[in-house]
Amino acid sequence: MIQIPSLDYSIEIGAIHASSFRKFLVENFNQSKKVIICDENTNEHCVSYLTTSFDELANAEIIVLPSGEENKIMEICLQVWEALSDYKIQRGDLIINVGGGMITDLGAFVASIYKRGVPFINIPTSLLAMVDASSGGKTGVDLGPYKNQLGLFSTPQLVVCDPIFLGTLPEEEKLWGKAEMLKHGLIRSKPHWNSLKNISVSEINAETIATSVGIKNDVVLKDFKEENIRKGLNFGHTIGHALEGYFLSKNKKSHGHCVAWGLVAESLLAYKFGKLPKEEYADIYQTISKEYPAIQFETSVIEVLLELMENDKKNTKSGINFTTISTIGEAHIDYSFSVAEITEVLQELFIQH
Amino acid sequence: MIQIPSLDYSIEIGAIHASSFRKFLVENFNQSKKVIICDENTNEHCVSYLTTSFDELANAEIIVLPSGEENKIMEICLQVWEALSDYKIQRGDLIINVGGGMITDLGAFVASIYKRGVPFINIPTSLLAMVDASSGGKTGVDLGPYKNQLGLFSTPQLVVCDPIFLGTLPEEEKLWGKAEMLKHGLIRSKPHWNSLKNISVSEINAETIATSVGIKNDVVLKDFKEENIRKGLNFGHTIGHALEGYFLSKNKKSHGHCVAWGLVAESLLAYKFGKLPKEEYADIYQTISKEYPAIQFETSVIEVLLELMENDKKNTKSGINFTTISTIGEAHIDYSFSVAEITEVLQELFIQH
Repeated sequence: MIQIPSLDYSIEIGAIHASSFRKFLVENFNQSKKVIICDENTNEHCVSYLTTSFDELANAEIIVLPSGEENKIMEICLQVWEALSDYKIQRGDLIINVGGGMITDLGAFVASIYKRGVPFINIPTSLLAMVDASSGGKTGVDLGPYKNQLGLFSTPQLVVCDPIFLGTLPEEEKLWGKAEMLKHGLIRSKPHWNSLKNISVSEINAETIATSVGIKNDVVLKDFKEENIRKGLNFGHTIGHALEGYFLSKNKKSHGHCVAWGLVAESLLAYKFGKLPKEEYADIYQTISKEYPAIQFETSVIEVLLELMENDKKNTKSGINFTTISTIGEAHIDYSFSVAEITEVLQELFIQH
Repeated sequence: MIQIPSLDYSIEIGAIHASSFRKFLVENFNQSKKVIICDENTNEHCVSYLTTSFDELANAEIIVLPSGEENKIMEICLQVWEALSDYKIQRGDLIINVGGGMITDLGAFVASIYKRGVPFINIPTSLLAMVDASSGGKTGVDLGPYKNQLGLFSTPQLVVCDPIFLGTLPEEEKLWGKAEMLKHGLIRSKPHWNSLKNISVSEINAETIATSVGIKNDVVLKDFKEENIRKGLNFGHTIGHALEGYFLSKNKKSHGHCVAWGLVAESLLAYKFGKLPKEEYADIYQTISKEYPAIQFETSVIEVLLELMENDKKNTKSGINFTTISTIGEAHIDYSFSVAEITEVLQELFIQH
């Protein structure tokens, strides 16, 4: 069991039986009502594993949401809040989020807003949620095409990442999670980048996950509210979020898929208009384009993407805000690229010639 | 200008021209977009006073909401968030809430959730919002009949209470605000209670307001997250909120009206089943019943009210949580009364015999 202490909680990576999950339930929530929030998939593949393994969850209420990022919206939150009211959930009760990033983002938001805050535990079941969404205290939902536009900073009581749940995922899902891990390497650790480059997603284990969680947590501890260095974690996400928002209403593409190509695009910006050496960009392009399906669209889409970027949360008065890298492993925040530069890069990477 | 320092902001009571409002706009938000959130009434009576007095607000966007507590709901928030997205409001921009408790509660919530938090200033225009809702950091909206069920703790940048706005209110509205002031006296200051008892609402001025704000602020500074003594501010509100929730879908009654009778009912509980002396209860009953219209309903409603109380935010596993008083000016938190005791009191006060 790998334990990573975070702000006022800890992130545990390993078999949930060996984690402090049961102790937590017994010591802090013995008399409390428990509510599990999950989606159709995790209800089938993960929740029964938990409820049969832990007697303490025998009477838990289970709220099953429709799966998919398009359901990470306020309308769904309202349904959950109504269910919590019906169950008469009080401030001393406990919410347990079991699922991918959509469930941990939305479930943590729902818990943090209900009665101004009910304690919650995250049990991420996708690689992406394990290495990114489930820890760090960002919670929220989307507003139309704008990703995570509504939310707040709020920490869980405990996060348990049990790799057993990765066995329930298609290979593709793991690939989407690996994109965030590659990002961790690009912004903070060349060794992590190099080790990820050479392994397939099926080889990702508790130790690799812990390295990524550790990098993210290190940044979060230094800047919880994203006033400075935490912005580094947004590398690949300015363009990635725009791609994701654009495709949300079309042939939907996953967050990790869009982030992977966001990493390539923002690395190309860093090479063409910043300091990233050509051979490092080539390394990034080859690594990612080899594993992640290409993304292509018509020229007219560029304008839509720029419009979405203009509403990015990180922006200030001075334009679209980027994190950039000067070399693999070293990020720089609050960087600006011009619309012409962004357009050039989007054209080079995504427009069929 | 009376200045009351609070957590990380200050509450100013007096003419807004003499306050630090302009300095704040110039020094911190000179280049920022400004959005004013108001309702139909405050748009007509208060917002033009502000926009014509302060050049800095000349280009402010104005979002006008339908007035009334029944609009303090998530569906209205969603409309505001969509408008903020359309205006491309960023984290460094400013939201100014101009209105009564519905506007400051909802506007502060909207600002705190949008992009995980945009700075906001509260300019309360009702007595109730001045002495209660606009400061202290509680933000939120209702969920069906459950008051303030969804929200978070989040502080404004500045609160300015300008008594000039009270001139735009009907007498009745001021009466509702006075209920919270009476509560401040009952829980923390017999002198404040005694002075309020003997003045009409038209005599309430900056000094009386400041005394109430000071009492509330003192409690909030000691216990921001309502883990202990802040619960004292809920005196009158367990029954008051249930009354308000019940009447929301009927012949609506204002928050202050329900709180006034909540104070009487919870004082009767304190006298019959607690330590409040008979003559003090008589004083409370006479003072409030003289000024506030009686509330009456059928016996069957008692069950509905008890059901609403069971979902009160303050409850723990051990039952319906009350604040009680042992004497005027001294509150005690985390007190329980039985369903039989509550029923007896509701019957005595509210059922037509």
